[in-house]
Amino acid sequence: MKRSERFIFFDNINTTFPDPEVIDIINKTLVSRLGNPSSHVHSAGISAGAAIDAAREKVSSLINASGGSVVFTSGATESNNLAVRGFFAANPRFQFAFPAIEHYSIMNQAVDLRKNNVKVKTISIDSSGIVDLDSLEEIVRGHPAFISVAPANPEIGTVQDVPAISEICRRNGAVLHCDATAAAGLMELDVAEMGIDLLTLSAHNMYGPMGVGALYIGKNINISPLFAGGNQESGIRPGTENIAGIAGMGQACRIVKDGIESYRDHLKRLGLRLWRGLADSIQFIHFTGHEEKRLPGHVSFWVEHVEGESLLLLLSMNGIMASSGSACSSNLKGKDESDLAASHVLTAIGVPSDICAGSITFSMCKDNTEDEVEAVLEVMPGIVGKLLEMSPSYEDYKKGKEIHHG
Amino acid sequence: MKRSERFIFFDNINTTFPDPEVIDIINKTLVSRLGNPSSHVHSAGISAGAAIDAAREKVSSLINASGGSVVFTSGATESNNLAVRGFFAANPRFQFAFPAIEHYSIMNQAVDLRKNNVKVKTISIDSSGIVDLDSLEEIVRGHPAFISVAPANPEIGTVQDVPAISEICRRNGAVLHCDATAAAGLMELDVAEMGIDLLTLSAHNMYGPMGVGALYIGKNINISPLFAGGNQESGIRPGTENIAGIAGMGQACRIVKDGIESYRDHLKRLGLRLWRGLADSIQFIHFTGHEEKRLPGHVSFWVEHVEGESLLLLLSMNGIMASSGSACSSNLKGKDESDLAASHVLTAIGVPSDICAGSITFSMCKDNTEDEVEAVLEVMPGIVGKLLEMSPSYEDYKKGKEIHHG
Repeated sequence: MKRSERFIFFDNINTTFPDPEVIDIINKTLVSRLGNPSSHVHSAGISAGAAIDAAREKVSSLINASGGSVVFTSGATESNNLAVRGFFAANPRFQFAFPAIEHYSIMNQAVDLRKNNVKVKTISIDSSGIVDLDSLEEIVRGHPAFISVAPANPEIGTVQDVPAISEICRRNGAVLHCDATAAAGLMELDVAEMGIDLLTLSAHNMYGPMGVGALYIGKNINISPLFAGGNQESGIRPGTENIAGIAGMGQACRIVKDGIESYRDHLKRLGLRLWRGLADSIQFIHFTGHEEKRLPGHVSFWVEHVEGESLLLLLSMNGIMASSGSACSSNLKGKDESDLAASHVLTAIGVPSDICAGSITFSMCKDNTEDEVEAVLEVMPGIVGKLLEMSPSYEDYKKGKEIHHG
Repeated sequence: MKRSERFIFFDNINTTFPDPEVIDIINKTLVSRLGNPSSHVHSAGISAGAAIDAAREKVSSLINASGGSVVFTSGATESNNLAVRGFFAANPRFQFAFPAIEHYSIMNQAVDLRKNNVKVKTISIDSSGIVDLDSLEEIVRGHPAFISVAPANPEIGTVQDVPAISEICRRNGAVLHCDATAAAGLMELDVAEMGIDLLTLSAHNMYGPMGVGALYIGKNINISPLFAGGNQESGIRPGTENIAGIAGMGQACRIVKDGIESYRDHLKRLGLRLWRGLADSIQFIHFTGHEEKRLPGHVSFWVEHVEGESLLLLLSMNGIMASSGSACSSNLKGKDESDLAASHVLTAIGVPSDICAGSITFSMCKDNTEDEVEAVLEVMPGIVGKLLEMSPSYEDYKKGKEIHHG
């Protein structure tokens, strides 16, 4: 089968492409003959430090971080690890709680923390993935807690009511960490207004380069570094800074800050059109996540009788790139095939694993177009139809129907 | 005072500038519309994985790593932390030993390891920084040990006899880690031939970008990841890969592999000329490290009666950039001024802190020229003379001499 010349990238939740302005500043940084930012004794080192400060200012401005500090890391996974481990190293008596739809870089910390006698609890969610505020209140009441809730879930697109969550945390002396990897670039994030104590950002999820991220740390939050080493990033994150990547992340934050209001409406329109078009044309489709409280341009679903992975592969052969949610979870495939079919997120929101064989996430960015949405809508019914023809469970279903109606 | 138009960068031990070929591949990677490398289900993700594999092959080829694996990290600090902590998490019964001239990202691990009841020992060195093989043998004999020795020291340029060290380690069942941050790009590193079990590499110290590194892990070495998260880098290093930086690091390794034989001779010549020129023209100069067993193009010294930092600042005002050794240690300045004056490396090799007020490291790279060396030699006597004039200890010295001769 000849591969399509088409190139429609609807997997922006796992990475966006770097914006031309981002690539430009990365280039300028690379050719600028910058020294090691820790070499304060000469001009090349001082210029390097200034480039980092300029980028930090742009990140800080995006999330209104002036009340705390922004530390650059190698990405969201390191930021999440620094937030959780760094916090518990400094505050071992807290309990740790999160909803069961968080990223593995949050969830998997529980193993080590339990070994260190940290109590780990799960915050209840409803079938659309919305955090149950009563469950949260019950956990934080009476015992100091570290709460980690992503403002938006990458796989099902559900957006949380962060101000309501933070209000409960504040009132009960709990610390709130938000992994904003999926949210940044799509939602406004004001750590001061939203009452967030720690916030994880990833550059490549918002038009920046891969391999760079940041952690916002509120003024009163005590965090220990993950690495032994030098005094970079005020000692919180030793290691020579990824200066070109950091400059790129700064520019990405500026692009988002300046553009989000206009492109968010564009994304909302595209998402709604895609959702409605699929609802009208695909039999057996089940949408996941919340219908309104969701990321703009994010449409997630599964199709009864159809394997998610086969659907993704046929889409890819037609030049349409999508995902089954988090790339990190699809990466677990090598370990355990069943992890792909029923992701921990789908399991947590109660999707029945006997009839759901994998979900699809279409996630758009500012550069996607209406024509691309129409192209996907044109291709989808044929692909789903082909997979239904091959599906043993659909065969059984039809037979059952025949018997029933026969 | 007007700053010089001159730009002579002799601080390559703290960072080289990215090679144009490196910048080129970073650019190509950034504009290639690559997906998340973990998105195996579509072509954009598969292309991203292929880019990482291609870079890994180049790194592997530089150090002859086919007998083990190469894991990409955010740099030398993370690689050193992954090597040491990752090893002790999986092998808690080993003892930990290193000479007292290692980088902080090695030395500072001792604190946490001691808390976990790991025995930490110091391997003796001589006054040029060469590891005492008898001291090493005494430590590794009879008790399993994890040894960390940098093949070359960034501050004093001393090069170790790694094959002799590894032979002792092998014979006694010890595991050998080498932090090759300073050595790579200047020495040939063949992990198989040299008997190295774990090797740290940093891209920006050999013409690659800042913020990316690698850890070579020998086949029989068991390492636990530092981060909780996805299954990237075979589960050893979770987190979306810094794909552009990794591609840049791969290209840097290729440049070094292809060019090292020719530019090493060039660097040896430059280093020798600088050394001899300084020896001839600077009164009270004391060279540090070993005269022959040292990195090519690396000249380190201190000047009696002269503060190292003042010398560095005057050099910088004359457009000449050098360092006081490791940038990471100069970064500690904010914490404790005395750390700059007498670095842990100088203290360990027995430089007298009462008469040494800070050292200088001139470190060259393939792109430095003879003209630059001559320019430095022309400027140095005047700067040192000016600082001597201002030096209270030189004043005392002269008075003492007058009394003596008077």
